[in-house]
Amino acid sequence: MPKLDFDVITLGHGSGGTLTNKLLDSGVFDVLSNDILNERHDGAFLEMNGKMAFSTDSFLVSPIFFPGGNIGELAVNGTVNDLAMCGATPKYLSLSFIIEEGLKMTEFWEILVAIKNACEKADVKVVTGDTKVVEKGKGDKVFINTSGIGNIHPKAHISEKNIKIGDKIIVSGNIATHGMAIMSVREGLEFDSTIESDTINLNHTISRLIDGFGSAIHLLTDPTRGGVATVLKEIALSSNIGIDIFQKDLPIDSQVASACELLGLDPLYVANEGLFLSFVDASIANSFVETLQKDENGTNAKIIGTVVEAHPKQVILESAIGGKRMVSMLPGEQLPRIC
Amino acid sequence: MPKLDFDVITLGHGSGGTLTNKLLDSGVFDVLSNDILNERHDGAFLEMNGKMAFSTDSFLVSPIFFPGGNIGELAVNGTVNDLAMCGATPKYLSLSFIIEEGLKMTEFWEILVAIKNACEKADVKVVTGDTKVVEKGKGDKVFINTSGIGNIHPKAHISEKNIKIGDKIIVSGNIATHGMAIMSVREGLEFDSTIESDTINLNHTISRLIDGFGSAIHLLTDPTRGGVATVLKEIALSSNIGIDIFQKDLPIDSQVASACELLGLDPLYVANEGLFLSFVDASIANSFVETLQKDENGTNAKIIGTVVEAHPKQVILESAIGGKRMVSMLPGEQLPRIC
Repeated sequence: MPKLDFDVITLGHGSGGTLTNKLLDSGVFDVLSNDILNERHDGAFLEMNGKMAFSTDSFLVSPIFFPGGNIGELAVNGTVNDLAMCGATPKYLSLSFIIEEGLKMTEFWEILVAIKNACEKADVKVVTGDTKVVEKGKGDKVFINTSGIGNIHPKAHISEKNIKIGDKIIVSGNIATHGMAIMSVREGLEFDSTIESDTINLNHTISRLIDGFGSAIHLLTDPTRGGVATVLKEIALSSNIGIDIFQKDLPIDSQVASACELLGLDPLYVANEGLFLSFVDASIANSFVETLQKDENGTNAKIIGTVVEAHPKQVILESAIGGKRMVSMLPGEQLPRIC
Repeated sequence: MPKLDFDVITLGHGSGGTLTNKLLDSGVFDVLSNDILNERHDGAFLEMNGKMAFSTDSFLVSPIFFPGGNIGELAVNGTVNDLAMCGATPKYLSLSFIIEEGLKMTEFWEILVAIKNACEKADVKVVTGDTKVVEKGKGDKVFINTSGIGNIHPKAHISEKNIKIGDKIIVSGNIATHGMAIMSVREGLEFDSTIESDTINLNHTISRLIDGFGSAIHLLTDPTRGGVATVLKEIALSSNIGIDIFQKDLPIDSQVASACELLGLDPLYVANEGLFLSFVDASIANSFVETLQKDENGTNAKIIGTVVEAHPKQVILESAIGGKRMVSMLPGEQLPRIC
């Protein structure tokens, strides 16, 4: 971090005047530097051609630093992954901070560096931004919005409308990791080793899968807030399909499972950040999983379910001992401020 | 507003589960309905070709309802105008809410309707969004981020690099109106008539000006936070030019001027929302102003200054009685939470 004559961010840094410029010139622009951002106009000038995706997300995770990451990389990966789930190659991000006065400059700096590193990993550029500051007690350290755009992969054909009876549902790895990383910190749980968030950019993995399997991939979605259960139920409802899933096939880390049990949480409802669900044509399902298992972001990938005709709009979970239960959406607020 | 079984927004409405879906299905999607948004994927699918602009802004104005508007239309107009200042025709917006638990559903609804109306006026669509909720005391009613994209007008050629010595600087109307509308409410000032915010979409006006004057318009910028003084000083610094402005030519409403005097504020530093500055070739300046004065958003337009060689990086204000002073950026935080 460069040597600065201020240690904390104050209301003045959000004024749009001298202090805002001082904050931005302190190294923010240097850290995120690229040709487009450096123009510093009211918006970024870009060139895009053809089909694209556009997505937005605001991040307000608490605490802002957690095992496995911080709010900065979460904000980059979150929007990058939303674009990837559309079958797009993420390209440009906007970055908007809402800072509570009193945030330490060292903390802001650590977040910025995480943003820079996450952008490099995902091969995206921050091209436009905004910085605002609210009074103490009117925010919580820092909230970050990222929006993003990217071109749709030419071989992608992702849409709920493409789901058909018999499709296999594949999860890319262990569930409930991000949510339990945050909860373990909040609840002060201790395990043999720390549970780390799974936050990661998935776009390169997705791109390789689309290269290989094209339109046989019917739907991609990342089960963040609300977890795997909520997103499956949403799809069952909106696509008027039935879904069967099998508990014995759900991959979960043993410490994460223990933490869920300790806190009385069902891992099916716990948020994920580096995980995605794929609905694929049954004919390629095994090959898809084998390919994914060779990918660094899919070593624990498994087929967890099937699209069925039998019970439209319902998700049925078959338990390890063969019992069946209906899966609903997350009913209330299980884990606030998880992303 | 539809009849709902909840009156206030709670943490559960940000869970991503049943309550979030209930909130979105309560009419949010109906109010903002369009083909792209209605797909409800992780992002919006669009088609864009050629040069475009991309911009973002987070809005945290307090109070959220103020004379002349509310945070909803401000959030639409703010990003629409940032795109317009790039010479772009705004087309698609993202919309992200950070709600403090306890926000009344009637307030949220009023904001949504304002967003819908502002989108219609500006001819833009909300195509993707996000809704999060923070605990009481960790936010302030509601913060809104909008990001937007649009195609660059084929005749536009907007860049600081195009500014040249002799360029005329034109303000599109009365200065300091938005800031004083907010401050009058906060300070409980009373006048013969209420000072109303100038928040409005400027994109149609800008589009007509670019149609008529093309590349003779060198730079467009909207002096929001920090006011006219700050934005002129920023341009003088980054473009290494001198700027002369003349106090007698600065248009200001008499009540706004009185309010500034009462509160000891210099209107040159007060935020505007429906105002823009144009740097244009001297040869078209008079014709540009006459055209602008016939536009509903430019009736009070005036030439207020000139780009000069004499004092690079400095903005000099000539007062009504002929004195001269250097204009700096807004030094600290004059009016927090103004947009």
